[in-house]
Amino acid sequence: MSASLSFYSDNSSGVHPEVLAAIAAVNHGHALGYGEDEHTRRSEAAFARHFGDGVQVFSVVNGSAANVVSAAACCRPYDAVITTSAAHLAWSECGAIERMVGCKVMEVPHEHGRIDVEAVRRLVSAAPDDHTNRPRLISITQATEMLTVYTPAEIAGIARLAHEHGLLLHVDGARIANAAVSLGMGLRECTGDLGVDLLSFGGTKNGLLMGEAVVAFTPLDHVGYVRKQGLQLLSKMRFLSAQFSALLEGDLWRRNAAHANAMAAHLAARLRAETDVEILHPVDANGVFVRLRPEVIEATIGRFPYYVFDRERGVARLMTTWDTTREFIDGFVEALRTVP
Amino acid sequence: MSASLSFYSDNSSGVHPEVLAAIAAVNHGHALGYGEDEHTRRSEAAFARHFGDGVQVFSVVNGSAANVVSAAACCRPYDAVITTSAAHLAWSECGAIERMVGCKVMEVPHEHGRIDVEAVRRLVSAAPDDHTNRPRLISITQATEMLTVYTPAEIAGIARLAHEHGLLLHVDGARIANAAVSLGMGLRECTGDLGVDLLSFGGTKNGLLMGEAVVAFTPLDHVGYVRKQGLQLLSKMRFLSAQFSALLEGDLWRRNAAHANAMAAHLAARLRAETDVEILHPVDANGVFVRLRPEVIEATIGRFPYYVFDRERGVARLMTTWDTTREFIDGFVEALRTVP
Amino acid sequence: MSASLSFYSDNSSGVHPEVLAAIAAVNHGHALGYGEDEHTRRSEAAFARHFGDGVQVFSVVNGSAANVVSAAACCRPYDAVITTSAAHLAWSECGAIERMVGCKVMEVPHEHGRIDVEAVRRLVSAAPDDHTNRPRLISITQATEMLTVYTPAEIAGIARLAHEHGLLLHVDGARIANAAVSLGMGLRECTGDLGVDLLSFGGTKNGLLMGEAVVAFTPLDHVGYVRKQGLQLLSKMRFLSAQFSALLEGDLWRRNAAHANAMAAHLAARLRAETDVEILHPVDANGVFVRLRPEVIEATIGRFPYYVFDRERGVARLMTTWDTTREFIDGFVEALRTVP
Amino acid sequence: MSASLSFYSDNSSGVHPEVLAAIAAVNHGHALGYGEDEHTRRSEAAFARHFGDGVQVFSVVNGSAANVVSAAACCRPYDAVITTSAAHLAWSECGAIERMVGCKVMEVPHEHGRIDVEAVRRLVSAAPDDHTNRPRLISITQATEMLTVYTPAEIAGIARLAHEHGLLLHVDGARIANAAVSLGMGLRECTGDLGVDLLSFGGTKNGLLMGEAVVAFTPLDHVGYVRKQGLQLLSKMRFLSAQFSALLEGDLWRRNAAHANAMAAHLAARLRAETDVEILHPVDANGVFVRLRPEVIEATIGRFPYYVFDRERGVARLMTTWDTTREFIDGFVEALRTVP
Repeated sequence: MSASLSFYSDNSSGVHPEVLAAIAAVNHGHALGYGEDEHTRRSEAAFARHFGDGVQVFSVVNGSAANVVSAAACCRPYDAVITTSAAHLAWSECGAIERMVGCKVMEVPHEHGRIDVEAVRRLVSAAPDDHTNRPRLISITQATEMLTVYTPAEIAGIARLAHEHGLLLHVDGARIANAAVSLGMGLRECTGDLGVDLLSFGGTKNGLLMGEAVVAFTPLDHVGYVRKQGLQLLSKMRFLSAQFSALLEGDLWRRNAAHANAMAAHLAARLRAETDVEILHPVDANGVFVRLRPEVIEATIGRFPYYVFDRERGVARLMTTWDTTREFIDGFVEALRTVP
Repeated sequence: MSASLSFYSDNSSGVHPEVLAAIAAVNHGHALGYGEDEHTRRSEAAFARHFGDGVQVFSVVNGSAANVVSAAACCRPYDAVITTSAAHLAWSECGAIERMVGCKVMEVPHEHGRIDVEAVRRLVSAAPDDHTNRPRLISITQATEMLTVYTPAEIAGIARLAHEHGLLLHVDGARIANAAVSLGMGLRECTGDLGVDLLSFGGTKNGLLMGEAVVAFTPLDHVGYVRKQGLQLLSKMRFLSAQFSALLEGDLWRRNAAHANAMAAHLAARLRAETDVEILHPVDANGVFVRLRPEVIEATIGRFPYYVFDRERGVARLMTTWDTTREFIDGFVEALRTVP
Repeated sequence: MSASLSFYSDNSSGVHPEVLAAIAAVNHGHALGYGEDEHTRRSEAAFARHFGDGVQVFSVVNGSAANVVSAAACCRPYDAVITTSAAHLAWSECGAIERMVGCKVMEVPHEHGRIDVEAVRRLVSAAPDDHTNRPRLISITQATEMLTVYTPAEIAGIARLAHEHGLLLHVDGARIANAAVSLGMGLRECTGDLGVDLLSFGGTKNGLLMGEAVVAFTPLDHVGYVRKQGLQLLSKMRFLSAQFSALLEGDLWRRNAAHANAMAAHLAARLRAETDVEILHPVDANGVFVRLRPEVIEATIGRFPYYVFDRERGVARLMTTWDTTREFIDGFVEALRTVP
Repeated sequence: MSASLSFYSDNSSGVHPEVLAAIAAVNHGHALGYGEDEHTRRSEAAFARHFGDGVQVFSVVNGSAANVVSAAACCRPYDAVITTSAAHLAWSECGAIERMVGCKVMEVPHEHGRIDVEAVRRLVSAAPDDHTNRPRLISITQATEMLTVYTPAEIAGIARLAHEHGLLLHVDGARIANAAVSLGMGLRECTGDLGVDLLSFGGTKNGLLMGEAVVAFTPLDHVGYVRKQGLQLLSKMRFLSAQFSALLEGDLWRRNAAHANAMAAHLAARLRAETDVEILHPVDANGVFVRLRPEVIEATIGRFPYYVFDRERGVARLMTTWDTTREFIDGFVEALRTVP
């Protein structure tokens, strides 16, 4: 793929111009490394404005790292993380959590990406027994891997379940901005205020060159050590921090996510109105899962690259991003409609 | 510290303008993530021109990661890495090698940062015994942590020692460009051609925004998995790859390193000629270790920030970088000379 | 529970008198530790007679350790072990495989404890992708956790599937003797000869004080290091080795297993003939899974202790062992029949 | 070696008859596994009589496991254990602590096996810095690997140093009974009462078939999980527990240790009085380190097996045990004296 645009992934997009400008703006003179610089202080202030003064924030380089540092900060090696069988941390991180934290990932079913709460309840309600890992963390993804969004009540309910049993709630928020926009809520309002203890805050998919952050609403010890040992402490940290400032000081985080969501909604609307393409999950955020005929895939995937999850069943994911254009979507729908 | 320049660390410097321009140049349209893009292919070609067609190259985000991925690619958890007691991997990576590889770090003494070869020989010559970790990797740093440089004969000798005993030789090359320039050699000539099996190729300290690479001269299996599980696989890889291309396609790697080395030489020359400051190690690369009186530190460290390793003994390190100016050095020497 | 006999677990039984005598018989004078003694040589010869001259044998202290050492000997941290959702290594070892090997356990469904081969095939047939752990080992349990027994053809088929895809086949043989007796086969005939690469050979449940062994039909490197690092190397090894000799030099392994199996068959026969108790799985080895009414559990569990897996559904496991008596079984059936 | 007696190691000796009798005595009927049995309760009571009612006790199978479980119970992966360069946990456990805990072992020098307290002080006094592992545990060996014994004041001083800096003190007590006898103190008096937080209590070298225990004077969470995940939870636990009861209910622990110590004293006395053999360390416990001429080694090692640490320098260790006889020692001294 070498395309001007695509539906492949939100990480196929580039760096938002304001973010790149922010990087250039801090590229003068020397600065202390490893986050001891003023630009990092400034980004922390931006996080605090969104998430509250008490939160701890630790930037990392990618989403897998955000999830692993989150788990490593609160889990012991004999603990378990409960998540869905669709979760990125369960199947798309090459077992980094198992290796680095030592803990077990307990998978439960999901519906449209939303965790089966009753299955979680059974696991956390089991009598403690040292033959089996101790459930310590529930991890859900918001927006989910299927681009659906949990309601605030659902999140609050899972948080209560976690806390009643002495567990913490982690949210993999690689697309938390898209979820917040979808819910019409602020970033803290849809996370910490609902009882979330730890958030993997996603930046890369929302216009950064690279960068995610662990946001801890619940005080955690020694996360600095965890991040360093997890190979996530950058020396020239200012260039990571400046990106977060660009995203969070104004409303870029919201603009980017709102645009991506709107593009997905537009795409879904046109597919529903003008085609018989089956949409497989509710379209709450910035992507549309569809079932496509082989001929359709054949005819469209070259000009409008997207990811086919299951070629046999024709399951494909159409992601929209901060730079998706209405023209690109319209072109795709036209192309799709003309396949015999 | 918030200074226009400093002697603090080579990672206190910013991004070389040509590198930043290269990032901007690839920021258009969509690209496949995780290194499946054309910009990554191009950077691999640049590596191949320097290191040979057969090498494997895996980019990572920082030096600790380059060392850990190198070790993880060839060591089993019951193995040992032999290195010096000054090595970055032994004392400045928060035990990431122990945690992620499982293996033991066996420290041996060093002289001016250069490993005690006889101490290594004793360890690798011991009869195998499953009560003690199996030595599998020798890791040396080039240029060393004391900014000295091994001779080609020294490297070749250590490589022979390693291979005779079934071990591999790893070079932590966070400053390999400075060493190559110091030796007047090409990058492969001073590494793979001497028997080095694995190189942590440093970019960050030589003008990149961020980026190191594992260069494997000896074929290794499954490094892709190791990198991913080690949390080092970036989605928007093109922005990492473009930096390596900027560094390696022309002679930027050499220009930057040559300038930094020349600045250290200039600093050492002036200190030797005009002051009684004790220089603690040979000045082979881009830094000068000195012993300074408390009054001197007091009087200079504010305007010319540097790192004091041992305040009691006055041991300080003066690092020069791609952007150090002759004026800055001269200002420092003047300031130092006027301390009563 | 402090009972003369029980149906609780085959590890509730004690040490067979011949095994205890063998321990006493080697308790004279001094011996080299850590397996360098003549008694260990002798036990290795006993293993070789059963399993072939080429096998490697490493004793460990318990079944979890046998499974972990097996996996650690052939898996890298980015690998995956595929097993059933009922497997001991998946749910009864407190995540020891995840922690010590680093790898992921991929669970697939089972029927009566036997692995769903098609689900395995889908996992091993997936294209390699460094975002997901690399399947490296299939682990099945023989006799299964439900006390069913795979047929030789089933084992051979799973071995072929494993080998076709570059994986190895491990058998958790905590009850391999019971399986061999059930099949009327020799120990090697029902393992290595069918393509099994690694066997956790169970001793504890078959009359030893304590002791399992990893038997490797496929040559593996460095298992000695793995065992030591896995905390499984005993200094006074002769007392472990002597137990294996007692088990394997004569036919004690077979006598014990045959007795236990016969007792389970007797129990199942009486339950089928004289009660309406539902037997939940085929009774191939030394245990019977049943569904019992609450009143029955209430009335019998005190005198005839057994493990209730699911109190709500009344699922209980009745294990028989080398020392189970026909009288004990008959007493249980009588008691059960008289519950109103 | 296949000798009636030896000086090889205290683990070359067999099982004390009273211990073997205790094993046989609990070998009747069924018992719950995994420590849920009455015999384990009884052994815990015996531990409590020696160490206090508040201690937690977790049996494991060997000394490496006792050390690893101790460290794993209180260290996070980014922590460090400070110990001597002679420590068993540093060099004789195949890196099990690194692998299983993830942490770094920081080695400091020792004198006759006793840790260099000033070197420890420097490490624990360093400012916290997430680039380097956080010191969390000091581990000393009592009696030391050189068979010297720390004084109570030394232990108390190290405990104070640890606690002042927020660390815990662990004692590797593979030979704690020998130390207690040497000091004329009770087991708790020379450990917990002096500020020791965690003790690896040694049984194997003092007459058990196999068995050590982690004794925690400071409350620790979740050690049961740590032990299980560390592959140390035995199913037929009664046979381990009964050994501890045999050792601790009467004075067997003291008798065995006192005999072994007395034999070492006798050996040292005769060597000093009648030979010119150099004794390399104070003889405080049950072994004598000597320097022997090659001819002497040649002439004696066959009949009186011992371990030669350094053949070039003739450094040998003569261990005495619960079953060493005065005749064996006298025979050795006679043989040694007659070497020309």
